[in-house]
Amino acid sequence: MPKTSNSVGLTQTKYFNIEDKILLESGKEFGPIQVAYETYGTLNDDKDNAILLLHALTGDAHAAGYHDENDKKRGWWDDMVGPGKAFDTDKYFVISSNMLGGCSGTTGPCSINPETQKPYALDFPVITIEDAVKVQKKLVEFLGVKKLIVAGGSMGGMQALEWSITNADMVDSVIIIASTSRLNAQGIAFNAVGRNAILSDPYFNNGNYYGEEKQPEKGLAIARMVGHITYLCEEAMHKKFGRRFQYSDKPNFDFNIDFQVESYLEHQGKTFVDRFDANSYLYITKAVDYFDLAQKHGSLKAAFEKTNSRFLVMSFTSDWLFPTSQSKEIVQALIKAGKDVSFCEIESPCGHDAFLLEFETQTKIVKSFLSKGEDNA
Amino acid sequence: MPKTSNSVGLTQTKYFNIEDKILLESGKEFGPIQVAYETYGTLNDDKDNAILLLHALTGDAHAAGYHDENDKKRGWWDDMVGPGKAFDTDKYFVISSNMLGGCSGTTGPCSINPETQKPYALDFPVITIEDAVKVQKKLVEFLGVKKLIVAGGSMGGMQALEWSITNADMVDSVIIIASTSRLNAQGIAFNAVGRNAILSDPYFNNGNYYGEEKQPEKGLAIARMVGHITYLCEEAMHKKFGRRFQYSDKPNFDFNIDFQVESYLEHQGKTFVDRFDANSYLYITKAVDYFDLAQKHGSLKAAFEKTNSRFLVMSFTSDWLFPTSQSKEIVQALIKAGKDVSFCEIESPCGHDAFLLEFETQTKIVKSFLSKGEDNA
Repeated sequence: MPKTSNSVGLTQTKYFNIEDKILLESGKEFGPIQVAYETYGTLNDDKDNAILLLHALTGDAHAAGYHDENDKKRGWWDDMVGPGKAFDTDKYFVISSNMLGGCSGTTGPCSINPETQKPYALDFPVITIEDAVKVQKKLVEFLGVKKLIVAGGSMGGMQALEWSITNADMVDSVIIIASTSRLNAQGIAFNAVGRNAILSDPYFNNGNYYGEEKQPEKGLAIARMVGHITYLCEEAMHKKFGRRFQYSDKPNFDFNIDFQVESYLEHQGKTFVDRFDANSYLYITKAVDYFDLAQKHGSLKAAFEKTNSRFLVMSFTSDWLFPTSQSKEIVQALIKAGKDVSFCEIESPCGHDAFLLEFETQTKIVKSFLSKGEDNA
Repeated sequence: MPKTSNSVGLTQTKYFNIEDKILLESGKEFGPIQVAYETYGTLNDDKDNAILLLHALTGDAHAAGYHDENDKKRGWWDDMVGPGKAFDTDKYFVISSNMLGGCSGTTGPCSINPETQKPYALDFPVITIEDAVKVQKKLVEFLGVKKLIVAGGSMGGMQALEWSITNADMVDSVIIIASTSRLNAQGIAFNAVGRNAILSDPYFNNGNYYGEEKQPEKGLAIARMVGHITYLCEEAMHKKFGRRFQYSDKPNFDFNIDFQVESYLEHQGKTFVDRFDANSYLYITKAVDYFDLAQKHGSLKAAFEKTNSRFLVMSFTSDWLFPTSQSKEIVQALIKAGKDVSFCEIESPCGHDAFLLEFETQTKIVKSFLSKGEDNA
């Protein structure tokens, strides 16, 4: 844990329990639910200085700081959260929680089903972004928050949009980065390939692989490899790896790894299976596929007419997974709905991953946006 | 078989045998080799009116016409080959052969190794585009051809480039469509994911699955699904499938197929395993990954200084697998090398697949290019 003046320092994941069942969008009731969360900064007396951060596909509650003195890995948005940072913990009470269906402390398919005393596996109900937000709402109420700002990149942006619509009276401001109001066919297709790789793994065993000697690791790794291709852009990938060989200056003439980019993908796949659950990957990608504000509300404009928030929408020039055109759809619908919206397309070579990397530009824009909100308050 | 005046009609795959071993780029010697091929039209007395068509990743020798009266499926470039068509069989002697390493009649990993009387499987040597061209050269010589035009889309374009460099005195004209002089990192990455899916399939059995009850079908299907995403462009995919559900007007809330695009990919995967061999997929994608004219010849300009051909290079606006920028690299290097080159970027929404679909525009351009060659002759 390096010492820096603007770090939140040591952080701890805490747990909140929802004992009652909640009604899911599918019509099923589900509970109890444990929610893993972290907080940084202090809630003020008016209970209106909260920022809820919403993680992307494989994120967790640990958004900032370190878990112990020897921890080498910071929270996933540590560059953005801390004293004086974009999400300034001197001013704001920042909350981050693991999503429903996840595998990092919040109830998901790997959790024990109290009725059977075995992991839910595929008995876990299919959940949606709306369901995830419903659980987050319970957490936020438990923490005593009355008004909040919601912010997220990628899938986190979907949750932020959902928050502003279904909890219109609570959400002051919304920050959406590299996100969309609905996946296009190509996005669904990439998710479908990933799920297919998991479902086809011989050790998937209809989701009942917990505690087994073999896990569906190869399927999950392939899903992650496909994901990583979509998180980088072609130019960034070529700049990073080009056609360089990994071990030699010429082809192996076999089916082992030849190129650096192959080694990178294999590494990404292998390390992912140590931290993520294949069933969670199925459930969360399905929730992402299903998210479609226009379909649910009749139109995107109709969806946004229900919000009382002001919006900051950011996209990145090289993001081809959630391209700028999709952010512009959100912005145009917000304008049609008469809402206050700022939009910024950031020049970046980092592809979709830019929301995790381009923190300097993001910080300037987020700070400017939040300071206007403070002036209005 | 529909009757049309400009069809080559019934065609037949023939076989040519190379009894001697050939020296492969890897340094290994390999043989004997059987080559599956078809021809359309007649070789003239000067033996200089031949066009060699070169197929893409999963193509075969059957480029045009029908194999029998009840055949419903035409050859893969039937729209381009026939009397009065782009590759006009009234004028030209058109040749198409299955690539070395393939699974449609030319010797490949599924062929019987005469030394063991078993399929080669992974004892088949790793081959390159240069090796494939070496085999095609033997076929063309066997057919008595003295001068020829070479033409191909995608991987076929790589072979056409290789032909013009290693057989400079034979090749008059080169037609390259939606191709490249080398894959970028993203292209290698997509191929690596496909190979990974095959190599991870529990029934792959180190390539020795021939005659077994179970085949590595799921792995090969996943490879094909990834491929199909890259063959279409995002806009075309969204236009074709959007977010439409396959069976209902709402989510299933399970892990079966929800969206039309998922059904399309599953269908493409399933039908592919009936016609293609998983080992061939490994070998041919490796050959594609290895192809790199600049690396082999010092620079692309140096590579093209070795050719005596005139060139037509075509790309498609929506092709993101082999984008226009890669065609332009070829064109610029040809110009630097002082070669005669025509370039055309065709406006098309069909993505990489456009070279198989946009036959009307292609026909006009190819005819114009070939007629100039005829004037010069």
